[in-house]
Amino acid sequence: MSLATTIKILECSTSDRWIEQALANLDTILLDHSHCERKAAGIAINMMFRYPSFRQLVKQLTAIAKEELEHFEQVNQWLDKKEIPLAPLNSPPYGSKLKAQIRHQEPDRLLDSLLVSALIEARSHERLGLLGEHCPEPELAKFYRSLMASEARHYGMYWVLATQYCERKVVDKRLEELSIIESEILSTLYHEPRIHS
Amino acid sequence: MSLATTIKILECSTSDRWIEQALANLDTILLDHSHCERKAAGIAINMMFRYPSFRQLVKQLTAIAKEELEHFEQVNQWLDKKEIPLAPLNSPPYGSKLKAQIRHQEPDRLLDSLLVSALIEARSHERLGLLGEHCPEPELAKFYRSLMASEARHYGMYWVLATQYCERKVVDKRLEELSIIESEILSTLYHEPRIHS
Ligand SMILES: [Fe+2]
Ligand SMILES: [Fe+2]
Ligand SMILES: [Fe+2]
Ligand SMILES: [Fe+2]
Repeated sequence: MSLATTIKILECSTSDRWIEQALANLDTILLDHSHCERKAAGIAINMMFRYPSFRQLVKQLTAIAKEELEHFEQVNQWLDKKEIPLAPLNSPPYGSKLKAQIRHQEPDRLLDSLLVSALIEARSHERLGLLGEHCPEPELAKFYRSLMASEARHYGMYWVLATQYCERKVVDKRLEELSIIESEILSTLYHEPRIHS
Repeated sequence: MSLATTIKILECSTSDRWIEQALANLDTILLDHSHCERKAAGIAINMMFRYPSFRQLVKQLTAIAKEELEHFEQVNQWLDKKEIPLAPLNSPPYGSKLKAQIRHQEPDRLLDSLLVSALIEARSHERLGLLGEHCPEPELAKFYRSLMASEARHYGMYWVLATQYCERKVVDKRLEELSIIESEILSTLYHEPRIHS
């Protein structure tokens, strides 16, 4: 899967206003990023708890959770280096609004959970890429670029899982619906700087 | 910390009846063990979510969660090798009874959470050690022995965290109380074979 394919699933690209907001608040973005990586690990593990006998899913999600914990550690090292204390941070509406799209009946629930995670990963990939391109601190920019490839791979893993458990046509249709919603959620910039503001 | 110290925190040693039960049901024990490793990762991550700004705690729990996911993968490879399908398995009362001991007010909640995890790790260490000693399949026995050292280390990490956030005297007193309860819970063998039956 090429990076071009990955980005294509996002209905709209991130606006310049988000980049400006992020660059003006790099410390907060870093702290929020730490929370995002921990949440990504938590989501993967929770999904494993829900489908404990789905071999492929458990296998892939374990790998994802391990990598997200690695990222979490790496971001926390950056926080240490910049002497930014670990602190709670209220979440933007992005995650909860996407979660609200997950239908409750199986197998819809599984499909939606996988695709919502796929979209979050794709968006993280795009935004870490933007930070990697525009961040004025060369070392930090390099760090963002080092993470973006993993997030694209995670997107791919969630997408492949969706096609393993659901019919391809159904996956494509639902992904299109959800990607429109995902872009709509981000069409209004959240007033606080966040990875997914 | 020597292994001897580790085991000493357990009020009572495991009975021969548990070993007999486990050896007669090695496949179920392996499947339950897989669930235990996933749960151990989940508990560590959940605790991080509750105390996101406790630097040392977050750091240590991230390391533990990563290792538990490694163990989870390793146990699942054993399940694959033995063609034991991943399947849900009802949990013995051990975990929920211990969880019920966690007080709701802080800082008691933090202390109890850390000590309950410490006790679970110490007991896992003891039981994996017994499996490592008595399991009739040499390769599998070796695998159990390879895991037992990590579980002792995890016990140590939880205990050290407890002493970092709470006064040593308070930690010692509460650990004694909880270890008595932990042994009481295991004094009746659960009718189904489990790591913590
Ligand atoms: Fe990540
Ligand atoms: Fe990711
Ligand atoms: Fe473990
Ligand atoms: Fe452990």
